[in-house]
Amino acid sequence: MGRRRPGAGRRVVAIGGGTGLPAVLAGLKRYLGTRLSDLTAIVTVTDDGGSSGRLREELQIPPPGDIRNCLVALADVEPLMAQLFQFRFGGDGSLAGHSFGNLFLAALTRVTGDVLQAIRVSGKVLAVRGTILPSTLENVQLVAELADGAFVHGESRVADQAGAIRRVHLKPEAPPALPEVLEAIDGAHLVILAPGSLYTSLIPNLLVDGVVDALRAAGAATVYVANLMTEPGETDHYSLAQHLEALELHAGPGLVDGVIVNSRPFREGVLRRYRRAGAEPVGLDLDRVRAMGVWVAEADLVSHLDVARHHPQKLGRVLMRLLGEGEA
Amino acid sequence: MGRRRPGAGRRVVAIGGGTGLPAVLAGLKRYLGTRLSDLTAIVTVTDDGGSSGRLREELQIPPPGDIRNCLVALADVEPLMAQLFQFRFGGDGSLAGHSFGNLFLAALTRVTGDVLQAIRVSGKVLAVRGTILPSTLENVQLVAELADGAFVHGESRVADQAGAIRRVHLKPEAPPALPEVLEAIDGAHLVILAPGSLYTSLIPNLLVDGVVDALRAAGAATVYVANLMTEPGETDHYSLAQHLEALELHAGPGLVDGVIVNSRPFREGVLRRYRRAGAEPVGLDLDRVRAMGVWVAEADLVSHLDVARHHPQKLGRVLMRLLGEGEA
Repeated sequence: MGRRRPGAGRRVVAIGGGTGLPAVLAGLKRYLGTRLSDLTAIVTVTDDGGSSGRLREELQIPPPGDIRNCLVALADVEPLMAQLFQFRFGGDGSLAGHSFGNLFLAALTRVTGDVLQAIRVSGKVLAVRGTILPSTLENVQLVAELADGAFVHGESRVADQAGAIRRVHLKPEAPPALPEVLEAIDGAHLVILAPGSLYTSLIPNLLVDGVVDALRAAGAATVYVANLMTEPGETDHYSLAQHLEALELHAGPGLVDGVIVNSRPFREGVLRRYRRAGAEPVGLDLDRVRAMGVWVAEADLVSHLDVARHHPQKLGRVLMRLLGEGEA
Repeated sequence: MGRRRPGAGRRVVAIGGGTGLPAVLAGLKRYLGTRLSDLTAIVTVTDDGGSSGRLREELQIPPPGDIRNCLVALADVEPLMAQLFQFRFGGDGSLAGHSFGNLFLAALTRVTGDVLQAIRVSGKVLAVRGTILPSTLENVQLVAELADGAFVHGESRVADQAGAIRRVHLKPEAPPALPEVLEAIDGAHLVILAPGSLYTSLIPNLLVDGVVDALRAAGAATVYVANLMTEPGETDHYSLAQHLEALELHAGPGLVDGVIVNSRPFREGVLRRYRRAGAEPVGLDLDRVRAMGVWVAEADLVSHLDVARHHPQKLGRVLMRLLGEGEA
């Protein structure tokens, strides 16, 4: 219980990937420039499937998909441009499956020779508020070690396999963090570990050299936004404490100061649908969580009653309360 | 000699495609809003090769390449965005050969369901001054009838073949012009037939139903900017008068009121290089041209001394002189 709580302050860093990080960003965007002075998203770069994977391989650029979703989440532009960025070419031609925003980032990266400038220019086009940074510029691959001792190489294969994951690695190991990433963490008043795929979106960022050290050295509280549901092949039957244990296994004990959990129960119809897909609500073993020295903030965070997704605005309000009041 | 000369006025329409039309637009852009009140580019849509051809086929959209080049010619934006629009993906992957601007137009056309809106939005992104219109929204193919009676289907095949062209057709024949195209011609003070590929860029626009009638009905003078060089497989050994005869064959006699020709001779080294590629300066048989009732304006129009290309600024100055003074 001696863990840090967020102090009053206005700089926030959010770490993750997939769809969880954009939900956090979208929830906080509206406070930027008012109660938030700045917001930095630190994004995983291990994606190797779909449009991102193809671009990564064909053009030797970091996978653009997760970055694109963060750009759109922070965009402040007419809906048509956001729609354009998220547009995915259909059919079965050579473009099929590519999202336009990915091609935009890819072309800009090639034209400028610099992915950071490509993100900045895209940000200008989309009137993005906040900063988006890949956690590392290294070309890294995710490798999972399964419970049965087998190794699975590549994020998309890790996400697709059904076995239990013991731990994940990056290859090459401990790639250097982008200096701007460490600076953002160093200056943060609050660090948010975004919800989403635990092993394939969140933890890869923590394996980048320097990130965990910076989190420990920083004055900011590190708050984990708990997943609503377990994820088949990644976190089957995991309770909240087990999520935290997985984080500790990769980042060392005591990294997470607090967790934000959803207090609103799902309807039986929703649960049945998720159960059929192999997912269930993350068990809230809060006593065990608190026994790990982690504080818990509970709130209604759910989006639609039919889908188990974080509601960006609800999540944003809770996160801002953490910043403004020093506690939940 | 009774043909119209441009009257004083500020609205210009330029018709063509390829690289010739963008040269005309780039030359006139700087006068927009000052001595020119508006400028409309009418662009051919028969391209079926390269990136444009693939997008046309895969996505059922008009070929974007010629439109893209016009957008960039009229853009008033930081060089990076223009570079991005003209960036062509390399390598040998699925994106190889696609220009980014083509993908931009393609995605916007699919998102909005409307190629005109896609051009407008792209124009906003590139801070384009002026209006760009495809001559027709119909999905048309170019067909060439050769001197030996054979038919060649498809613009890229027509451009690639080596025989002499008797005439070209559109398939389907006489597709309806875009109403905005006819309105622009109707309101113009000067209509420019741009230099470039005679049979594959310029004439296809004149085969669109309504365009020639509108040109004849309009008060504007129609001025043809003569090609500097003949084009292998299209205009081998054509003199200027033969270019005009080809225009008359497709559009009826008396369409062209005046021609603008380059007066500056090329260096022998340049001529030798072009000769090796099967091209030669267009013979300026000006007496024969004048005997067709067409006035001639001569000026130094050449870009670099090493390449036979129109210098946009020089061309723009001459065109503005036509507008402002009523004659060359």
